[in-house]
Amino acid sequence: MKAIPGPSKRRLVLLERLLSGCGKKTITSVEIEALTGCSSAVIRKDISLLDVCCGASNGYKIAELKAAIVKALNLTQERQKCCIVGLGKLGQALLESTELESSPFQIVAGFDSNVNRTEVLRSVFPLHPTTMLESVIKTEHIKYAILTVPQEEAQGTAQKLSSCGIKGIVNFTSCVLTVPKKTAVENVSLLTSLETLSAN
Amino acid sequence: MKAIPGPSKRRLVLLERLLSGCGKKTITSVEIEALTGCSSAVIRKDISLLDVCCGASNGYKIAELKAAIVKALNLTQERQKCCIVGLGKLGQALLESTELESSPFQIVAGFDSNVNRTEVLRSVFPLHPTTMLESVIKTEHIKYAILTVPQEEAQGTAQKLSSCGIKGIVNFTSCVLTVPKKTAVENVSLLTSLETLSAN
Repeated sequence: MKAIPGPSKRRLVLLERLLSGCGKKTITSVEIEALTGCSSAVIRKDISLLDVCCGASNGYKIAELKAAIVKALNLTQERQKCCIVGLGKLGQALLESTELESSPFQIVAGFDSNVNRTEVLRSVFPLHPTTMLESVIKTEHIKYAILTVPQEEAQGTAQKLSSCGIKGIVNFTSCVLTVPKKTAVENVSLLTSLETLSAN
Repeated sequence: MKAIPGPSKRRLVLLERLLSGCGKKTITSVEIEALTGCSSAVIRKDISLLDVCCGASNGYKIAELKAAIVKALNLTQERQKCCIVGLGKLGQALLESTELESSPFQIVAGFDSNVNRTEVLRSVFPLHPTTMLESVIKTEHIKYAILTVPQEEAQGTAQKLSSCGIKGIVNFTSCVLTVPKKTAVENVSLLTSLETLSAN
């Protein structure tokens, strides 16, 4: 199978979630367009990257399509460990987030360069000073990092995370991160999103 | 000029920011690849959507490239009003975010269905019960909404925002939103980002 480009991945992840909540047996690309706002042509192209025998006229079988996405993206139910780096307001809000509760992702550690914060904040998982980044990531086998440090610390921290073997970073800062190719980055900062929305 | 697809927009927004912080006069697509992780072929394709006479061998002139991105994406310095809908932990963290400070985006209102919250929370801009969504958005000419409501309220709220004339939604929930085409959506939920990172 061909490698799936990033934008297709992003759309397929959302499509899989959409199909999971779908009561019907089949769905057409035109129906998916109405539900997601992606054009049906883009949707058909994304699906063509998968291993499905399509039903161009009758629609895709939902169960088959969902299974093909899970297989192609290697979406697993296996537990995957994450950490939060930066425990300011945003990091603290994510500490308490329930969004990952029934997902395979589990936050197992938090880090901040301010030792007061790591000592005072309450959390169901341990909080550490940033100096312990490397040892905790390696001992705990943490795969993903959620980056919520101040802008000026973002690049340095991202480099350190990459050198500790982190596979992917969810970047909540508006810094454009430069990291080795082995570390993937998803940019989800408020500023970047607003700029993209306002782009003509 | 051709319409610029969403994924190119997202990359060009980041490229413009990268160039803004760049001290040099010219830059090649290979250098941009090293800085952003996007392949140089993808970068050249994105830039080909712009109105620049390139320098394939000598690199792009940074000032010219930056101006072309600003023009093509219609990035403006004009103030653009935003609101936050949902003042739980994440919404509260964004209330106090300084990320937008020197940007054209300004948060001018917050909403929550819990009147206790809107009365107790402190903020530099007014907080309103969600029942006032329509009147405030229209009076204040708010263009963008930051959606941080609980998962189960996300779709209903998004529909309401769209019918109030909101142009774009930054969706921090993991709900796949179904809204009319005139309303753009940027999905930045933690779960979606982690799933995309873990996708093979």
